[in-house]
Amino acid sequence: MASPKETVRHAIRKDVPAILSLIRELADYEKELDSVEATEEKLLSTIAFAPSTTSSPDASATESTSSTKPARCLVLVTPEGVTAGIALYFYNYSTWRARPGIYLEDLYVQKDQRGKGYGKRLLVELAKEVVAMKGGRLEWSVLKWNEPSIKFYESIGATMMSEWVGMRVDGERLNKLAGLLG
Amino acid sequence: MASPKETVRHAIRKDVPAILSLIRELADYEKELDSVEATEEKLLSTIAFAPSTTSSPDASATESTSSTKPARCLVLVTPEGVTAGIALYFYNYSTWRARPGIYLEDLYVQKDQRGKGYGKRLLVELAKEVVAMKGGRLEWSVLKWNEPSIKFYESIGATMMSEWVGMRVDGERLNKLAGLLG
Repeated sequence: MASPKETVRHAIRKDVPAILSLIRELADYEKELDSVEATEEKLLSTIAFAPSTTSSPDASATESTSSTKPARCLVLVTPEGVTAGIALYFYNYSTWRARPGIYLEDLYVQKDQRGKGYGKRLLVELAKEVVAMKGGRLEWSVLKWNEPSIKFYESIGATMMSEWVGMRVDGERLNKLAGLLG
Repeated sequence: MASPKETVRHAIRKDVPAILSLIRELADYEKELDSVEATEEKLLSTIAFAPSTTSSPDASATESTSSTKPARCLVLVTPEGVTAGIALYFYNYSTWRARPGIYLEDLYVQKDQRGKGYGKRLLVELAKEVVAMKGGRLEWSVLKWNEPSIKFYESIGATMMSEWVGMRVDGERLNKLAGLLG
């Protein structure tokens, strides 16, 4: 008999305490716990959840996104029922192809649950969702010096976008830019 | 009397021919015209438009986004009525802050309309939209060697995210990843 497998599904509202706990674990791991402003309440109001009456992996069953709820979340539940990993993502867009895609904002698997292929499983589920939506791309970012991760990502088909650099305006600078032309 | 000013508003369905023409111009400028798969039909089915009965700058008046319509578009119309620039964008998300933001996918101003501050105007309007949605960040990407653009972006408050590199899976590799675990 095959051993029982992990489950991956779209997050429901009841998953929020587990999701927050994983977000805090990730931040703690990166020694940035103080930067976490996320609370259960904020997550509840910014993630598009699946209805709790279905465990459908169909993304179209989740709430429609909007400016206030752009985020979506996959949760990975172990055969023992532990929420061991999350993939937080949103829909992006390629202008030249005029096709949607998925941008993976955060991927996290609990420390003591690693080495079981759970990270890869979450990436595969996101790739499936891009294919299902007739999308063009699955994208994410990685710290440049994180070579083990980059090697892993390349091994599953990812290309490094080395020619591009991200630009960001936030905090007080964002308010300043918004008011620049009076 | 002040001279008449340009207008920036959310795209309506009637703007699509002008939008496509600007997308093609941008691609031609980058010598990548062959890469443009966008058509009027594809743009109509992937952009969330504002209702044509309103010229409201309020983003909440646009169609709600979904996996098939993640894109939004601002158009800049000159005092003479020329659609001279576009900003194609989608909503993104910061996990730690549990707040939405805007990612600017493409910004383009027609060659003979440059030097009038139209690019800055479009960036300011996007910054205003982020502030209005209580969002956290306005982000975009630039080619690393495009120093004039980087200097301009830094002058309006943007920070380069030099520690990060983008990863992308698309085309046949995306199908392969989607089928990796059978």
